[in-house]
Amino acid sequence: MLRNSTIKLLSSSRAAQLDRFLMSAEGGGFSIDQLMELAGLAVAQAVYKAYPPQKVAQSSKTESAVRRDKVLILVGPGNNGGDGLVAARHLQLLGYDCLVFYPKRNTKSTLYTGLVQQMNHFDISFLKTPGTDSENLKKFEELTLSSAFKKSDIIIDAIFGFSYKPPIREPFHEAIQLLTSTNKPVVSVDVPSSWNVDNGPVDIDSNGVFMPSVLVSLTAPKGVVKSISQSTRHFVGGRFVSEALQNEFDLDNISYIGTDMVAEVSN
Amino acid sequence: MLRNSTIKLLSSSRAAQLDRFLMSAEGGGFSIDQLMELAGLAVAQAVYKAYPPQKVAQSSKTESAVRRDKVLILVGPGNNGGDGLVAARHLQLLGYDCLVFYPKRNTKSTLYTGLVQQMNHFDISFLKTPGTDSENLKKFEELTLSSAFKKSDIIIDAIFGFSYKPPIREPFHEAIQLLTSTNKPVVSVDVPSSWNVDNGPVDIDSNGVFMPSVLVSLTAPKGVVKSISQSTRHFVGGRFVSEALQNEFDLDNISYIGTDMVAEVSN
Repeated sequence: MLRNSTIKLLSSSRAAQLDRFLMSAEGGGFSIDQLMELAGLAVAQAVYKAYPPQKVAQSSKTESAVRRDKVLILVGPGNNGGDGLVAARHLQLLGYDCLVFYPKRNTKSTLYTGLVQQMNHFDISFLKTPGTDSENLKKFEELTLSSAFKKSDIIIDAIFGFSYKPPIREPFHEAIQLLTSTNKPVVSVDVPSSWNVDNGPVDIDSNGVFMPSVLVSLTAPKGVVKSISQSTRHFVGGRFVSEALQNEFDLDNISYIGTDMVAEVSN
Repeated sequence: MLRNSTIKLLSSSRAAQLDRFLMSAEGGGFSIDQLMELAGLAVAQAVYKAYPPQKVAQSSKTESAVRRDKVLILVGPGNNGGDGLVAARHLQLLGYDCLVFYPKRNTKSTLYTGLVQQMNHFDISFLKTPGTDSENLKKFEELTLSSAFKKSDIIIDAIFGFSYKPPIREPFHEAIQLLTSTNKPVVSVDVPSSWNVDNGPVDIDSNGVFMPSVLVSLTAPKGVVKSISQSTRHFVGGRFVSEALQNEFDLDNISYIGTDMVAEVSN
């Protein structure tokens, strides 16, 4: 039985090495599209396990009207954000209603323009932001970020990942403040944003530290796991890790149940 | 409840249109890597549902020795074959022992050289064939195709897909003959190989027709579903299909259970 206190952790520098190895032509041979797809699917499955979708009938004249749980996805500028966009697509398919905050778009990469088009294709809304290039985005909601938090049932933190180095780049400062003060459940992708990847939480504005309700470690857990609270649920999504990779990077063998793409680690 | 007799079917020409739409920058916005990953994962999950992995202790001096179910994956030259390679990787992770027959390799495409390197990385064996370029393949088994059938518990038919047009290109004729005569369970990916995509089975050598034990329709079922036997189990793996796509291509809404990537259709 894997426990947070004994599970093997990857340092930020080893995580970067592992990532390069997975995608090298002589190593894992994976493409970024493949790995991001599996990562985003794992995040969506962890959300499903922690907060199963509720279909609550609305007071409405049509019987078919149901309220789907609203998920706000906070998307950073890099691959952690990309994982979040893939997760949004799968969450929509799993029965949630997604709203995407994506203020700093990568418009040069076909991977990222494709991910945005997938959102359009699934009729997923974007939050209107000053930094958002409205071209190529189909559906908008005009809300402040603070209102979007209030309106949502679940928040996905896909802002910064294992390569994060302080200080927090704009326009994400407000998002971190809201993550720190919200009473909504927050699911962090790989690393809680603003935390030091190896050493844990940082009190950015002397307002206390941000603590996620759920952490989904991707590939393998990072040093942040030492600092999550007793009430934080921890899932690992690494069902693409070979035995060779486990040996090379000294990772635990994770036992997944059935065809699950995530496994929960106990306290 | 979806039934084979009433489910909506895609013609081969509409399937080709749908595929182009899914991958167009103004349509679905998907990359082939993403779609193939989800397709291969769906195939692996269908195999898991139909033939759950058995871990049988071998007579051996070490207690840890277990025999894993052996899966032979017949990989064609195109995207159907690519789905099979992705399925092989996921099947290995799900507890099966995979052996890949891939006699006609696409060595120009980074997608396909990557898929082959993923097999190497997972220590998956290839069947040695005259057409196989032994370079860049790590692990071989020297067996005839006929012996590989005998040695396997489950066969995956990922030879030809919805764009197949007769005649059968070499070196796949023998594989079709063995699929027709084998008593092992055969899982066909999207379309049973050698069948007319719209009109069903073809008796290639006047030896009877090939009938799969399991059919995994990808995206949406093709015309072949009209001709599967009462004992053929049918799964649909299309958990990436949007409402917009359902409407545009007149597809059924498939109800998936939980986080499953496949749903079974009843007779």
